[in-house]
Amino acid sequence: MAMTVWTYDWVPEGPRGFVRDLRLRWALEEAGLDYEVRGTPFGERGPGHLECQPFGQVPFLTDGDLTIFESGACLLHLARKSERLMPRDPAGEAETLQWVIAALNSIEMVTVPWWFLSLSGDKENGLAGWTKKRLGQIEAVLRGREWLAASRFTVADLLMADVLRVPDVRGLAASPVIEGYIERVCDREAFRKAFADQIEHFRAADRNRSS
Amino acid sequence: MAMTVWTYDWVPEGPRGFVRDLRLRWALEEAGLDYEVRGTPFGERGPGHLECQPFGQVPFLTDGDLTIFESGACLLHLARKSERLMPRDPAGEAETLQWVIAALNSIEMVTVPWWFLSLSGDKENGLAGWTKKRLGQIEAVLRGREWLAASRFTVADLLMADVLRVPDVRGLAASPVIEGYIERVCDREAFRKAFADQIEHFRAADRNRSS
Repeated sequence: MAMTVWTYDWVPEGPRGFVRDLRLRWALEEAGLDYEVRGTPFGERGPGHLECQPFGQVPFLTDGDLTIFESGACLLHLARKSERLMPRDPAGEAETLQWVIAALNSIEMVTVPWWFLSLSGDKENGLAGWTKKRLGQIEAVLRGREWLAASRFTVADLLMADVLRVPDVRGLAASPVIEGYIERVCDREAFRKAFADQIEHFRAADRNRSS
Repeated sequence: MAMTVWTYDWVPEGPRGFVRDLRLRWALEEAGLDYEVRGTPFGERGPGHLECQPFGQVPFLTDGDLTIFESGACLLHLARKSERLMPRDPAGEAETLQWVIAALNSIEMVTVPWWFLSLSGDKENGLAGWTKKRLGQIEAVLRGREWLAASRFTVADLLMADVLRVPDVRGLAASPVIEGYIERVCDREAFRKAFADQIEHFRAADRNRSS
């Protein structure tokens, strides 16, 4: 049975190309798994949405009888289905798991709150120092390797590159090493398809609204 | 072979009882797995530490030939070894995974940066509104259930309770529902042993320093 990726039915221009359903589309394309994409209202996060995602966010994934939210959890769920996303040897699996969590809890945990505070116009806000420190630490790691885990592309790179490619984060990092990493990880057919499909999903919503 | 939990050799009074090796000690006690605890210098995060944990933090775990960092990744690694931490049916496993990631990326991602900013004395800082909103959302979830996943204690409760039991976070939440949840999850022999062992680990370090 095909899986379903749930995202918003529409979003404004700003977040297009960065809504996190892209992580799931990308992983599903890498894995060659069948899926469809459906929309839940952006304007009103009703009880049906909150039942599937209690923080009123997207994405969430349905897989047969299962519904699972948190993009990181969905990625690890998909990684269990495809060796293309995560090696099957214990060391490769542990490395992939560790870098998936590091992307979420050591990098995104500072970049997203920093970005949130910077919306008020102050990029040198109270989290800027900590964020720059973490970006320097991940840069030091990436200086020594092409991929984060198991010397190959894994879902850990998919997630870390998606966390780092946010324009304000790239700007703060100002690092050729991090730029090179993002370009390397995103230079994949699966990323290009996922990105183009997300853009088209929201453009189609514009057309439906104006028709 | 016994696993080794790595933590600092010493920390000041403030963080004692909250250093994240406690999450691993607690999970290992729940699972009934053999382990030892070793210390890495708090004062100087040298190359040996950064090789195991590139952000200079603790804990990390050695399991035979594997070394794995990020407390969340270590917990999921341990959960694969013991059904006491995570059910084995696909629905129970997916629910546990989703709430482990939610604790890290939906709750801790706001509570830790909020707490960091509040160190300067301003608890009503720029992240206070977002943090209160998330605490309200998790409170709404906990109002309807005793445990997060699979109607039983799992590693997701261990992690979520550890994220929520930080005194400043409890204070900001000011919620009997969240208090009741923390008390329920922490009212376990494995938590009490892990907590007491961490306190003793750092007290022993004090004694060694003064002798």
